[in-house]
Amino acid sequence: MGTGQLATLIFQGFSGKIYPIHPRESTVLGLKAYRSIFDLPEIPDLAFMVLPTDIVVPKLEECGSAGVKAAVVVSGGFREVGKTGLEKERMLVRVAEKYKMVVIGPNCIGVSNFHIGMNTTYFPYQQDPGDITIISQSGTYSCHVYGYTRKFGMRLSHTVSVGNSAVVDLIDCLEYFAQEPRTKAIALYIEGLRDGKRFLRVAREVSPKKPVVALFVGGTLAGARAGMSHTGALGGDDSIYEGVFRQTGVIRVKTVQDMLDIAWALASLPPPAGRRMCVLTNAGGPGASMADACNREGLEVPEFSEKLKTGLKEILPHTASFSNPVDLTYFMDLHAMYERIPRMILESDEVDGIVMYGVFGSLLYRTLEEGLGGRIKYPIDEVVPVVRELLRKFVSYPGEYRKPVIVSSFWGTDDDALKQIADDGIPVYSSPERAVSAMAALYRYGRWLRSFNNG
Amino acid sequence: MGTGQLATLIFQGFSGKIYPIHPRESTVLGLKAYRSIFDLPEIPDLAFMVLPTDIVVPKLEECGSAGVKAAVVVSGGFREVGKTGLEKERMLVRVAEKYKMVVIGPNCIGVSNFHIGMNTTYFPYQQDPGDITIISQSGTYSCHVYGYTRKFGMRLSHTVSVGNSAVVDLIDCLEYFAQEPRTKAIALYIEGLRDGKRFLRVAREVSPKKPVVALFVGGTLAGARAGMSHTGALGGDDSIYEGVFRQTGVIRVKTVQDMLDIAWALASLPPPAGRRMCVLTNAGGPGASMADACNREGLEVPEFSEKLKTGLKEILPHTASFSNPVDLTYFMDLHAMYERIPRMILESDEVDGIVMYGVFGSLLYRTLEEGLGGRIKYPIDEVVPVVRELLRKFVSYPGEYRKPVIVSSFWGTDDDALKQIADDGIPVYSSPERAVSAMAALYRYGRWLRSFNNG
Repeated sequence: MGTGQLATLIFQGFSGKIYPIHPRESTVLGLKAYRSIFDLPEIPDLAFMVLPTDIVVPKLEECGSAGVKAAVVVSGGFREVGKTGLEKERMLVRVAEKYKMVVIGPNCIGVSNFHIGMNTTYFPYQQDPGDITIISQSGTYSCHVYGYTRKFGMRLSHTVSVGNSAVVDLIDCLEYFAQEPRTKAIALYIEGLRDGKRFLRVAREVSPKKPVVALFVGGTLAGARAGMSHTGALGGDDSIYEGVFRQTGVIRVKTVQDMLDIAWALASLPPPAGRRMCVLTNAGGPGASMADACNREGLEVPEFSEKLKTGLKEILPHTASFSNPVDLTYFMDLHAMYERIPRMILESDEVDGIVMYGVFGSLLYRTLEEGLGGRIKYPIDEVVPVVRELLRKFVSYPGEYRKPVIVSSFWGTDDDALKQIADDGIPVYSSPERAVSAMAALYRYGRWLRSFNNG
Repeated sequence: MGTGQLATLIFQGFSGKIYPIHPRESTVLGLKAYRSIFDLPEIPDLAFMVLPTDIVVPKLEECGSAGVKAAVVVSGGFREVGKTGLEKERMLVRVAEKYKMVVIGPNCIGVSNFHIGMNTTYFPYQQDPGDITIISQSGTYSCHVYGYTRKFGMRLSHTVSVGNSAVVDLIDCLEYFAQEPRTKAIALYIEGLRDGKRFLRVAREVSPKKPVVALFVGGTLAGARAGMSHTGALGGDDSIYEGVFRQTGVIRVKTVQDMLDIAWALASLPPPAGRRMCVLTNAGGPGASMADACNREGLEVPEFSEKLKTGLKEILPHTASFSNPVDLTYFMDLHAMYERIPRMILESDEVDGIVMYGVFGSLLYRTLEEGLGGRIKYPIDEVVPVVRELLRKFVSYPGEYRKPVIVSSFWGTDDDALKQIADDGIPVYSSPERAVSAMAALYRYGRWLRSFNNG
C-alpha cells in the first residue's frame, strides 16, 4: 500500500524531497531508502505512515523524538475496530500531545496540496491546481474524484481525508483552510459531527470570509447506519443539521455532484445581488430549460424593459428573441454574442447575473474536417484567435460588473473555447439545469452574506 | 447550412445513397450534384430540404410529384414567424396531404438513425448505435447532446427534432417508436402539447410496452414564456401535465441529465419488483451517499437477515461490513466482488436490486505505470483478462435474476472495465446519487406497470 501511495506522490511531481523508510529495501521506486527516521539527512516536515497497526505508535514516538512536527497516519485498526483499537488510538493521541505533533488520521487516505505537487493518495490528479479544497470524512471523496473533476473541469487546491480524526478533525481543517490563501471555497463531506457547538462557532466565523458547501449524508436512516459502520460517525436528525447549516451560512447540498458544482461557482464568482437572472442562449431548448429551472430554484427571469429590448433589437437579427430569455438562434456575430450583448445586459439594472448556453469553439469543425479528410474546410485558423480574444474579455465581466456569469454546454473542456473560459474562471456545467443550480446556490450564499452583514 | 448537414451525414457513414441537389454546383462535398429531383437516377426514400423559405412548398410539390414519400424540412420562416408564415405552413400541409407524404418539420434540425449511419444534424455522433430514442420539440436536444452521451456512455438509437410539427408531431413519433424494434426506451422533450387527449391515449398504449421518460419545461412562468418564444408551444399548468404523466406511466423528469440517465436505465434493465435495495460498495463514502439517496428517493436499504450476513461473512474479510450497505473496504478478491457476493445477494429474497460502487479496471494502473516510466509495474496483463471474464458474467445478472444492477463510478468509460459493463448493458453513472435516481425511476416505472397490469 505504501508503495502505491509513494507512486502517486512521484507521479504528481512533488516539489520537495522524499525519503522512503523501509526495514529491508535499499531503494523504493528508485529512491534511496533509509532504515529509520533517525538515519535521514534532515528532519522532514511531514511523516507519512503506512505501517502495521501495532508499530504505528512506537514509530510516531520515534518521529516525535526526532523532531518531526506533522504526520499522516494511513494505517487502520484503531477506534474503528472497537475496544482494543480505541486504546491504541488513545496512545497515539498521547504521543502527538507529548511532541506537539499535528496528526491526520489514523485510518485515512492522506492529504493533497496540488500547488506543490503533493498527493499522498492512490489517485493521480491530472489537472492544474485550482482553488477548491475538499475536507472529507470519507477517503474516497478526497481522491477518487480526481477523474471526475478532470472530466468536468473544476480544479482542486487541497484535499484532506480526516479519517478517525484522533488529533486533527474536520473542524480544525475548516479553520485552517479559512485562512489558507489559495483556497477560495471549501467543500465538506460529513457523516456526523462530534462537536456540533464548535462546528457552529467555527463555521459562522468562516462563512463570511470564505464560502463553505457541505454534503451531509447521516440524516436518513440508511445514511446514518452506513456512516456508523464506515467511520463510526453518529449521524443525526436531519433537521438539526439543516438548521446548523442555515444559521452558519454553509450551503448544504444533497449530492456529490452538487457539492463540487457549487463549490466551483462559489470559488469563482461574486454572488448575485438579487434573484433576477438573464437567460442568454443560442438554442431554444436549453433556454427554456434554464428559464424553467430558474423558477423552480427560486430565481426570477424578468421580462426586459422596452429600453433594453430596443437596445438588443439593434444588435440582433429579427429571428432572435429580445426579451428574457434572450435567444440568439443561429446568430453568428461573435462580437455581439461574447461582448456587445452580455455587456448591454450586465450594464443594465435589470438583472443580477447571466446563465448562458452557447459558448463554443473549434471542436465541432475540427472533428468534421478530420472526419471528411479535407473534403470540407472551415475557417478555423481565422476564427480561433478572434474567439480567444473575445473570450478573454468575456471572462472579465463577473469581476468588472460584480455579477456572476455561468455557462452550460453539452460539450466540455475538450472544446478549446469552453476550456479557455473554465480555466479563466467561468464555471461550465454539462447541462442547463446544473448551471442554474450553481447560480441558485450562489444566490443563497449572497443572501446569507447580506443578512449576516446587516446584523 | 445544407452543406454543413451533408458533411455530418457523410461523416456519420450513411449506408445509403446520397444525391445532392443544387441549382449551380456540379459537385457538393465531392458528391455529384443534380439540378432537380427529376434528374435523379432513382426516386429517393427521403428528401432532406434546406432551402429559402419561399421555395420550400414548390420544391416539396416537385418531390411529391416525383414520387418521394418522405421529407424533412429544415427551413424556418413558417408558423413560428407569425401570420405570413402560418399561411405558408398551411400550403406545405396541403402538399403533404395531396401526395400522402410524411413530413418532419418545418423549422427542425432533422432526424438520425444511427443503425444506418443516418444523421442529418450538424453534430457528429461518435459512438456505436444504442437503444435510446429522443423525440424533441427542441432541435438542440436532438443533436447537441451527442458530445454529452459520448462522455457518459449512454448510446442513442434515433433522434427526431419535430420542429413546427406541421404534419408529423411528437405523438406520431411516439407511436412510431413504440413499435420500432431497436428502440428500448423513448425520451421526450416537451415544451407544450396541442392535443393532450391524444397524448393521454397514445402514451397509455405505449408505456406498458416500452418505457417513456418526459422532460416538460412549460410548467413554470419563465419556462412557459421561453417555450412560447421558441416554438410557439403553449406551456400549461404544471399539475395538469404532472397528472397526465402519472396516469400514463410516463416517467417525468425535471432535467436533461435525468432524462438521459433514466432513459438509459429504462432501456437497459428490468424494473425492480419492489423498493428494497442492496448498496454494494468498496468505499465507505459512496456507500453512505447511496444509502442516504435511496431513503430520500423512497427506496429502502433493509438490514440483512442473520443467514445472509453469515453467508457474506464466509466470503468477506473481517474489516468489511456484512449488513447493508455491504462495504468490501479494500478487499481485492475479484471473484468474490464480481461474482460470489452479487450472486449471493441477488439469489436471496431480501433485495429487489443492487446499486454498486467500486467496479474498476486498469486505467489507474496504466496511468501510474506510464507516469512513472517503468519504475513501477502492476500485473495488468494478468489481471485484465480475469476481470474481463468476470464482468461478462456480471452483466448477465439483471437478465438472470430479473433484478436491476446499476453502477456508479467517478471514472467513466475511459476505464476499460467500466466501458465494458456500460457497453454490455449495465448503466454507469458519474456519481453515487445519479445511480440511485436512475434506480428510483426504474422502481416507479415497475410500480406503474404492476398497477396497470392489475387493472
